[in-house]
Amino acid sequence: MFKVNENYLKLPGSYLFSTIGKKVNAYSAAHPDRKVIRLGIGDVTQPLAPAVIDALHGAVDEMGRAESFHGYAPDLGYEFLRNAIAEHDFKARGCEIAADEIFVSDGAKCDCSNIQEIFSLDNKIAVCDPVYPVYVDSNVMAGRTGVYNAKTETWSDVIYMPCTADNQFVPELPKETPDMIYLCFPNNPTGATLAKAQLQEWVDYANQKGAVILYDAAYEAYISEADVPHSIYECEGARTCAIELRSFSKNAGFTGVRLGFTVIPKELKCGDVALHSLWARRHGTKYNGAPYIVQKAGEAVYSEAGRAQLRQQVDYYMSNARYILEGLKAAGFTVSGGVNAPYIWLKTPDGMTSWEFFDYLLEEVNVVGTPGSGFGPSGEGYFRLTAFGSRENTVEAVDRIRGLQGI
Amino acid sequence: MFKVNENYLKLPGSYLFSTIGKKVNAYSAAHPDRKVIRLGIGDVTQPLAPAVIDALHGAVDEMGRAESFHGYAPDLGYEFLRNAIAEHDFKARGCEIAADEIFVSDGAKCDCSNIQEIFSLDNKIAVCDPVYPVYVDSNVMAGRTGVYNAKTETWSDVIYMPCTADNQFVPELPKETPDMIYLCFPNNPTGATLAKAQLQEWVDYANQKGAVILYDAAYEAYISEADVPHSIYECEGARTCAIELRSFSKNAGFTGVRLGFTVIPKELKCGDVALHSLWARRHGTKYNGAPYIVQKAGEAVYSEAGRAQLRQQVDYYMSNARYILEGLKAAGFTVSGGVNAPYIWLKTPDGMTSWEFFDYLLEEVNVVGTPGSGFGPSGEGYFRLTAFGSRENTVEAVDRIRGLQGI
Repeated sequence: MFKVNENYLKLPGSYLFSTIGKKVNAYSAAHPDRKVIRLGIGDVTQPLAPAVIDALHGAVDEMGRAESFHGYAPDLGYEFLRNAIAEHDFKARGCEIAADEIFVSDGAKCDCSNIQEIFSLDNKIAVCDPVYPVYVDSNVMAGRTGVYNAKTETWSDVIYMPCTADNQFVPELPKETPDMIYLCFPNNPTGATLAKAQLQEWVDYANQKGAVILYDAAYEAYISEADVPHSIYECEGARTCAIELRSFSKNAGFTGVRLGFTVIPKELKCGDVALHSLWARRHGTKYNGAPYIVQKAGEAVYSEAGRAQLRQQVDYYMSNARYILEGLKAAGFTVSGGVNAPYIWLKTPDGMTSWEFFDYLLEEVNVVGTPGSGFGPSGEGYFRLTAFGSRENTVEAVDRIRGLQGI
Repeated sequence: MFKVNENYLKLPGSYLFSTIGKKVNAYSAAHPDRKVIRLGIGDVTQPLAPAVIDALHGAVDEMGRAESFHGYAPDLGYEFLRNAIAEHDFKARGCEIAADEIFVSDGAKCDCSNIQEIFSLDNKIAVCDPVYPVYVDSNVMAGRTGVYNAKTETWSDVIYMPCTADNQFVPELPKETPDMIYLCFPNNPTGATLAKAQLQEWVDYANQKGAVILYDAAYEAYISEADVPHSIYECEGARTCAIELRSFSKNAGFTGVRLGFTVIPKELKCGDVALHSLWARRHGTKYNGAPYIVQKAGEAVYSEAGRAQLRQQVDYYMSNARYILEGLKAAGFTVSGGVNAPYIWLKTPDGMTSWEFFDYLLEEVNVVGTPGSGFGPSGEGYFRLTAFGSRENTVEAVDRIRGLQGI
């Protein structure tokens, strides 16, 4: 008789954003007349940039003619895209990353949940708390996290690094030594950043301890301050300890287009074994490449027109972020983030729990955010709003929140 | 110090098609004047059908306007696509499969390598021999296959079901009881099929033993004979024992577009645990949906125009299959397959090994096929040719092979 992977049964509840979706759908079904504004899930709302649309149409036309049809893509991605990434995301910032160290994929969510597969189940992971749930859940499913404590909402074999107002939402080096360290900066959900010197400390620590850093830089396009690194490879020594995960979802609005990439420098090794070759093997065996038309769209992101158009798109979202940040501050909320990231992290008022505040906002002003406790125990008492709405909806949501009685 | 997943290190050599790609590239680099014809990897060559191209352009336009922009897709796929699949692939064939039992993905390769994740590592798998390498390799990477014997090229904890000329390439029920049974019909690589009564035996066996069948029906569009089932759900009792994996790669030429789906009936359970809910959890946590534009392309595959155009495309490839089959028969080769499948399975001449014949064909007539031994030990002495080339190349390849001296 077949048996199931019992690790799946250890997962408490459903995936955070599925739960939110169900709650919001139930509310909307019960109140079809209400206009619900969603600043919860980090989904973009602006249409694809004209340069991207043009590239997609062009690639579709190619696929309709035998002489320019494209079948299976190269395992690791088309060279035209990997070259553009290497040039603009790394070489232009002084980072030494070659095109063949870049693995193109259908998005950072897949990559950051699959990357743990190439590591031993004995490895101990460290995560920030609060944290993007996928890092932990993918390790739970693999069986790397030990026993769940429902009271503390923590796993016995996970090292949690609290990020709270006390440390400006910046994690401290852990006391217990981890093997795999998940870092995401600019941070989801808090919007906090690390200065270059702070990130260098993590790189030095990882090299000293023989740990690997899984660096999620999905939000790097939102960095506005000069001292904040866009890539971990801006730090010395990162090539021997860091994997970087990148997304086109937020910098180019590809949440529904699906494109991302992972960087594994060839020097990153365990003994003689290069992680690069293990990930290449995984790509070759379990993946069949991102669609040709989507990779052409990715190439257009780096064109001169694409870069100019997407700069405007990021600016649009960041002006939303400023509106939320300033509006909520003026209303007396304690808020952070929103300067180098599209996320605003606010303290719930009147000692409400995160989910209480979620229900309160949904019911009173029909605004959807994300409960901080959904990202981990240190997120309790916090709430995430995203800047990815339309300008009109963002303004209306903030104004509705400001109009709440008794806040 | 972090450690790697040691199961990866057990994998012998690289992924079959990567090896072939490297050999062919090396040959082409050394002989730039030669025209190499590739009938090796099962990649299509005909352009996307006009109905699909129209749908792609339409969806791209939608993505360029804020009011019709699509961000993150629903976890399990858009309803418009799941409804079309349920209607045309199942209801039209008398199979009781609901739209919410269909999980849309970026292709069958990902699904058939990821599906093992929801099962216990203690489960024992059974595979046909020869077999599509992904089934075995994904289980090796997970640690489910025991020790590799380099001499026999088999894994200690895998049940092999030889498919040879002696049994018309149809597997017999295994003596040792498996927990998970991988079946692919029409078969890759042999092109063999099961009649409905034969598949019913497997369903009955699985229900009796408490095993789950992972049924890969990627080639169902090529079935030309009435008695060959297109779906395992045509068999009674399959809803309690079978998962079906489907692809758009071969029926609609989507190898470079990336779309597939997996069917898990809600009755398929281990105790109280529905596999449907485990796979839904995996989708929600580790995947972000197939691109909107690709799902719209998938919908067009089921339109009246799409179906007519793709019927022509399948006929085109199957006329290639007939040309290969008849041409090689006339040349004295022992061949099978090619009637309900786009693959022709031929016995290597003069006692050559599969790789010897691969090198021989590549060097003598610049034709690329796939060595049968790459699919498993019982594939030794066989060779796979695909019908996915252009008509012109297919004719030229067969004529070149027929012209070989001493065969």
